[in-house]
Amino acid sequence: MSNVAVTYAKRMSKLKASEIREILKVTESPEMISFAGGLPAPELFPVKEIIEVNRIVLEEAADSALQYSTTEGFAPLRRWIAERMNTTQGTAFDADNILITHGSQQSLDLSGKVFLDEGDVLLCESPTYLAAITAFRAYGVHFVSVPTDDDGMKTDELEKLINETDRVKAIYVIPNFQNPTGRTWALERRKELARLSAAYGVVVIEDNPYGELRFAGEALPSVKSFDTDGNVLITGTFSKIFCPGYRIGWIAGDKDIIKKYVLAKQGTDLQCNTLAQMQIAKYLELYDIDAHIRTIRSVYKTRRDLMVKMMENEFPEGVTFTRPQGGLFAWVELPSHVNARDVLIKSLEEKVAFVPGGSFFPNGGHENTMRLNFSNMPEERIVEGMKRLAKVLRAFI
Amino acid sequence: MSNVAVTYAKRMSKLKASEIREILKVTESPEMISFAGGLPAPELFPVKEIIEVNRIVLEEAADSALQYSTTEGFAPLRRWIAERMNTTQGTAFDADNILITHGSQQSLDLSGKVFLDEGDVLLCESPTYLAAITAFRAYGVHFVSVPTDDDGMKTDELEKLINETDRVKAIYVIPNFQNPTGRTWALERRKELARLSAAYGVVVIEDNPYGELRFAGEALPSVKSFDTDGNVLITGTFSKIFCPGYRIGWIAGDKDIIKKYVLAKQGTDLQCNTLAQMQIAKYLELYDIDAHIRTIRSVYKTRRDLMVKMMENEFPEGVTFTRPQGGLFAWVELPSHVNARDVLIKSLEEKVAFVPGGSFFPNGGHENTMRLNFSNMPEERIVEGMKRLAKVLRAFI
Repeated sequence: MSNVAVTYAKRMSKLKASEIREILKVTESPEMISFAGGLPAPELFPVKEIIEVNRIVLEEAADSALQYSTTEGFAPLRRWIAERMNTTQGTAFDADNILITHGSQQSLDLSGKVFLDEGDVLLCESPTYLAAITAFRAYGVHFVSVPTDDDGMKTDELEKLINETDRVKAIYVIPNFQNPTGRTWALERRKELARLSAAYGVVVIEDNPYGELRFAGEALPSVKSFDTDGNVLITGTFSKIFCPGYRIGWIAGDKDIIKKYVLAKQGTDLQCNTLAQMQIAKYLELYDIDAHIRTIRSVYKTRRDLMVKMMENEFPEGVTFTRPQGGLFAWVELPSHVNARDVLIKSLEEKVAFVPGGSFFPNGGHENTMRLNFSNMPEERIVEGMKRLAKVLRAFI
Repeated sequence: MSNVAVTYAKRMSKLKASEIREILKVTESPEMISFAGGLPAPELFPVKEIIEVNRIVLEEAADSALQYSTTEGFAPLRRWIAERMNTTQGTAFDADNILITHGSQQSLDLSGKVFLDEGDVLLCESPTYLAAITAFRAYGVHFVSVPTDDDGMKTDELEKLINETDRVKAIYVIPNFQNPTGRTWALERRKELARLSAAYGVVVIEDNPYGELRFAGEALPSVKSFDTDGNVLITGTFSKIFCPGYRIGWIAGDKDIIKKYVLAKQGTDLQCNTLAQMQIAKYLELYDIDAHIRTIRSVYKTRRDLMVKMMENEFPEGVTFTRPQGGLFAWVELPSHVNARDVLIKSLEEKVAFVPGGSFFPNGGHENTMRLNFSNMPEERIVEGMKRLAKVLRAFI
């Protein structure tokens, strides 16, 4: 078993282990205060209700719940998602606009499979979601970062890049409480992105895992709601409003495009877990998910407020940070001479973990940035962890 | 939403909907007698036990069961699989040899991602598993069919093809109760395949979804058990011995290679459903899966015996068929002038479904073949369905 000399596919040389997942392995010890992962607060999981829906689904429909099913996904769940998106995202979907996926990550991977050829260019925010880079990189694309400010991609710069760049195939964006920065796109930028997508025939992947988690400011319509030509695909997930362990999300868009996603998923893994889909549908039928989401928002708001207050009070001069209106993450910029990877080494000695921001830039650089998660730790640990982190930062600055 | 003019990736032009999945949609009406799908018998699902383990896992460990977890999979489940394979497949694995996947189909897709570049050649049995063709086709490979008889691939012909063909990257085989033919490879052919894999440095994907379902003849060691160089990967799944709705399978092999699969899976969908993995592990801890598998084998043997008897008694002269020693499928060859797709049209009028065999040949032809599933229908429906199918066949021959 030790003479292996196989040749891997070329794409494998581009993949490396997720830095976040490697850091998460270190943070598994209970004394570690972790601002690293994008983990929801486990104490909010609706455990009692899940035990109940598990039992009901199996008593009512075990034959179908445990059997193979369609690639498209469980029809009642697809209908619920379509209606939900019509209410919250300003879309006009029915069930056939929705494919159930194995979490948002699969929505991104399938987007690569459906649209991206080797050598294509993908335009993305700067910084952008690390695991999206990993997913798309496997398809051999080049990443071009679009200059981004607190209102989202600068759409005038975006248009220039579309015009100047060969083989632009798709634009990847996270308009709500972006990972990693926590930023939210302004309304005008959303409209303008949809316009550019139609004008230039460029696909937009609108990744929206956190859209339901707004705890401040006013809800804004999705980019998809301004889409005139059907070029915009939008993702969603139950990971952040229910439980990530279920691995159930979706991709939504034009019905002809979704048919292509169905084909791609069929060869990839046939279908999602039938039981999990039926359990979530039963939960949505029997319980009030809006009340549950209100609880999540309220807890995350308290934690965000606390983390921002700690940053304001404890972080040294020269450190700037975002004040997100929702989601899971805040973003920190250190003075340019400070490398956040060095900070992490010291911080781990103090039993505090975070993710250095450099990994979120597909073409490197920006090593003076950090991503902080505020959803996963209870208040007293946020206070303690931020005190320790501030102390480490003061030693660097 | 109707002006879509997006450009898909080139690979999408090679994908088409699974004929089986399209036929399965027609067979959903309860009066249809279906020999089409590869569906386990739902009346054997351990429903009571599953309700129990769902409850126990959530009461004991909801925080972790509903949360994100590692890409590799739930450690106790990986350990169980390693030990199981060491017992049944003659391997020498520990947990690090195992990656939990979203069913065997994902094991195949990830194999494509890890190993296959556009233009590579994949050698396969003739016929072979339809959905494996779909999975590998997305990576732009060429299929070369290796002449195959009742003992498996003809390994002398295989060696000739390895020598004569450029860019042979991998060999895909299903040695136990093959899908679609029900055939099982002879011992010598297994040894010889392992030898050729080492001698020529060619990867072998040994797909083994049905290995546990032997109800006649003697168990044979896996190809992997004869692997000297670590080039052989072997799949497994809980779909056929537990429930397919869970979508939990695995890929096993050399630890360095499995690390590459872990990387590939990380970008594809992060990880499998945490709760599902823990529920299966709890089932394996609390209940006797061997007793459960004995029940499955016994029921499938009865159904296989019945289907073979019906074919012997009712099918017209000139029709030949396999007598599988396990698994889910029998394979039928009609006289060469009869097209099984025409037979299917008439058969569906009689409310009997099956899958025409032509789709299982990656390079076409062989339209006079059919795949019959015997696991899913109870005995009286097998008798009735086979009577009707025989009547249709007699009209053609």
